[in-house]
Amino acid sequence: MEIKELSVNGQRLRESMERMAKIGATPGGGVHRLALSDEDREGRDLFVRWLEDIELDVTIDEMGNIFGRRQGRNDTLPPVMSGSHMDSQPSGGRFDGILGVMGTLEALRTLHENRVVTERPIVIADWTNEEGSRFAPAMVGSGVWAGALKRDWAYDRTDIHGNRFEAELVRIGYKGQAKCEKRPVHCYYEYHIEQGPILEREGKGIGAPKGIVCLHWYDVYLKGEANQVGPTPMEGRHDALCAAAEMILKVNKLPERVGGNLVATVGEIQNYPNSRNIIPDKVHFTVDIRSWDDDHALKAWELLREDFEEIAARRGCPITIEETWRVQHSPFDAKLVQRILDIADHLGYPNLHMVSGAGHDASYMNQVCPTAMIFVPSIGGRSHVEVENTRWEDCEAGANTLLHAVMQSAEEH
Amino acid sequence: MEIKELSVNGQRLRESMERMAKIGATPGGGVHRLALSDEDREGRDLFVRWLEDIELDVTIDEMGNIFGRRQGRNDTLPPVMSGSHMDSQPSGGRFDGILGVMGTLEALRTLHENRVVTERPIVIADWTNEEGSRFAPAMVGSGVWAGALKRDWAYDRTDIHGNRFEAELVRIGYKGQAKCEKRPVHCYYEYHIEQGPILEREGKGIGAPKGIVCLHWYDVYLKGEANQVGPTPMEGRHDALCAAAEMILKVNKLPERVGGNLVATVGEIQNYPNSRNIIPDKVHFTVDIRSWDDDHALKAWELLREDFEEIAARRGCPITIEETWRVQHSPFDAKLVQRILDIADHLGYPNLHMVSGAGHDASYMNQVCPTAMIFVPSIGGRSHVEVENTRWEDCEAGANTLLHAVMQSAEEH
Repeated sequence: MEIKELSVNGQRLRESMERMAKIGATPGGGVHRLALSDEDREGRDLFVRWLEDIELDVTIDEMGNIFGRRQGRNDTLPPVMSGSHMDSQPSGGRFDGILGVMGTLEALRTLHENRVVTERPIVIADWTNEEGSRFAPAMVGSGVWAGALKRDWAYDRTDIHGNRFEAELVRIGYKGQAKCEKRPVHCYYEYHIEQGPILEREGKGIGAPKGIVCLHWYDVYLKGEANQVGPTPMEGRHDALCAAAEMILKVNKLPERVGGNLVATVGEIQNYPNSRNIIPDKVHFTVDIRSWDDDHALKAWELLREDFEEIAARRGCPITIEETWRVQHSPFDAKLVQRILDIADHLGYPNLHMVSGAGHDASYMNQVCPTAMIFVPSIGGRSHVEVENTRWEDCEAGANTLLHAVMQSAEEH
Repeated sequence: MEIKELSVNGQRLRESMERMAKIGATPGGGVHRLALSDEDREGRDLFVRWLEDIELDVTIDEMGNIFGRRQGRNDTLPPVMSGSHMDSQPSGGRFDGILGVMGTLEALRTLHENRVVTERPIVIADWTNEEGSRFAPAMVGSGVWAGALKRDWAYDRTDIHGNRFEAELVRIGYKGQAKCEKRPVHCYYEYHIEQGPILEREGKGIGAPKGIVCLHWYDVYLKGEANQVGPTPMEGRHDALCAAAEMILKVNKLPERVGGNLVATVGEIQNYPNSRNIIPDKVHFTVDIRSWDDDHALKAWELLREDFEEIAARRGCPITIEETWRVQHSPFDAKLVQRILDIADHLGYPNLHMVSGAGHDASYMNQVCPTAMIFVPSIGGRSHVEVENTRWEDCEAGANTLLHAVMQSAEEH
């Protein structure tokens, strides 16, 4: 069969996406479908029906991960796997996660209706709680499956109302029987929106990330001296918020200072006592640094740390720094990445070799088997918001690219 | 009687202060005695007993303000009034407010035991809810009394648990019968800790503020664009927290830039979504500007506003500014202020003509009658914190200054 012969049904993919977007739809055009919520259950129920419609063998494991298995000609070979997640951020978008699940489903529907038989079995996956916004941390379902996280630890995670992860899994009826543990997989693909503006800026429809950047998280704690603002002259103040403000700007300028495609962000800040007429005496803020180059990120951090210490000393605001989390950059399988670029070329889709700035279930799968991702453009680079959007033509192009990548891998002996 | 003859009993003042500090005492050596709490009730009960011990005529008004009246020779003349408040900040100090009430009580005890009869009656006042930390805003008891705030509006204030001010007043048994409304007062004194470091730095024991600085409050709202930090390059970001950080530093540098004893502070900030891996898309922060010179403060604000608009435009973060509250500077009665300085001189206390950077019940009383304040040093300038402290010698000196100021005013025809 010629590579260009088979293609997905873009209209059907769009209809599946639009149907799923009704579950947890928000007034602003987004989706609110938190992990293990009633909306998550409704989406899962529909997904399982759709898997059964194309005669997949459905398995639900003890973490609630859903797998649909399509037989191969040589059914004992490790399968090709492809998937993503169906949970969303609070008031999130209609594409993040779900596109990779519906895109894989559309590829399998295409194989099904064309009665294509592949050498290897193919497994579609919906991973539980990728977002981590209801139950922190993120990527728990794939993390336990890959052996990087413990099942019982995951079960004990609680949401802000104190509900346990396991209890919610039972409540929605998705605590399955199958053990959640890795088994041989030939390779893993994950199709996802880019969540950044690069593809759009470059005018490319398909992105193949060479891997996921490193991720360094720091927590900074500053102490100041609380006093009534009116009677306290400016000189001699120890204003922890002013010290933090200087540091935030240093973080923001760090990428320009060190170069090399590094990004650095302060996303979170807590200020105490946070009263308009009291000088702040305690501030906590976070630093997130990402780069393809781990050493570069560490050297940049050292420069920043020196700045922080200078600012803290000058302002008389003692500083404590915690190195909260460090994940090294994670290169995907070069052969699979090249395959995606080649397929996009063959299908006539302008494409880009890039990096992924965010973590995905593919991060954990990359520890288990050869892994690669397919990105499609996010309009305006927006994601995790209700206006998150991707053109339907791009959704179709991504699904076609995935279809052929999966087929090629599934024919490998 | 020679001015130096009569003096307060410093030991008794200290004992009264220490007794009161047991009510709501915190492990850190401070006091937690929020307005209309059980601790406030206990303090009030003790205070009323002490007023009755020296045969004062006790009145409680419908706002819970407590007055103790001492007869004058010419008892129909408007009284001299002196007081402050007994409520504290959460985990506040042992001196803020209560010193002015216990200092006045000590002056009246001194008059009582010496059988001094004054021409005018003298009234001691404990004003309800000066701090405003449980029921915002501050200075409600004196504000309603002075006619600046409405009683029923004050009754409807709620604490964070939804408890109404009026219900709590009833609960602790201090919703009195007397109307809360201003009546003729000859003059008002308020004795208070400085809550700043000036007296200590200048080595002075007594401060006489010429008045209260102006107070301008602004609320600034910034919009940014929320995106995942990893996949979003630095260029093209609209990070509302970075815009706020630049503005906070502009506020901090404003006093140095414009001179003239102005203070400017950002005490409060809210950041959204406040997640470590999402670029902040919404920030609210406050600006507090104080100066003796209203025009100077307004001109300084205009400079700041221009900076804010430039920063917002450059960072692509639309800004909205609310002018939340503006109180003009409020000069105290020059004759009374001079009287305090003269008395301190006579008593041999080094003294300072200064300003008050904070508002007090005296602010509202200043709208009703000639008013002045007596300040004593705050160690390290600290207040509203458990380590708030004032030397007992200074407490005694302040009470002696108050005693003679009250006596002189009470002899005026």
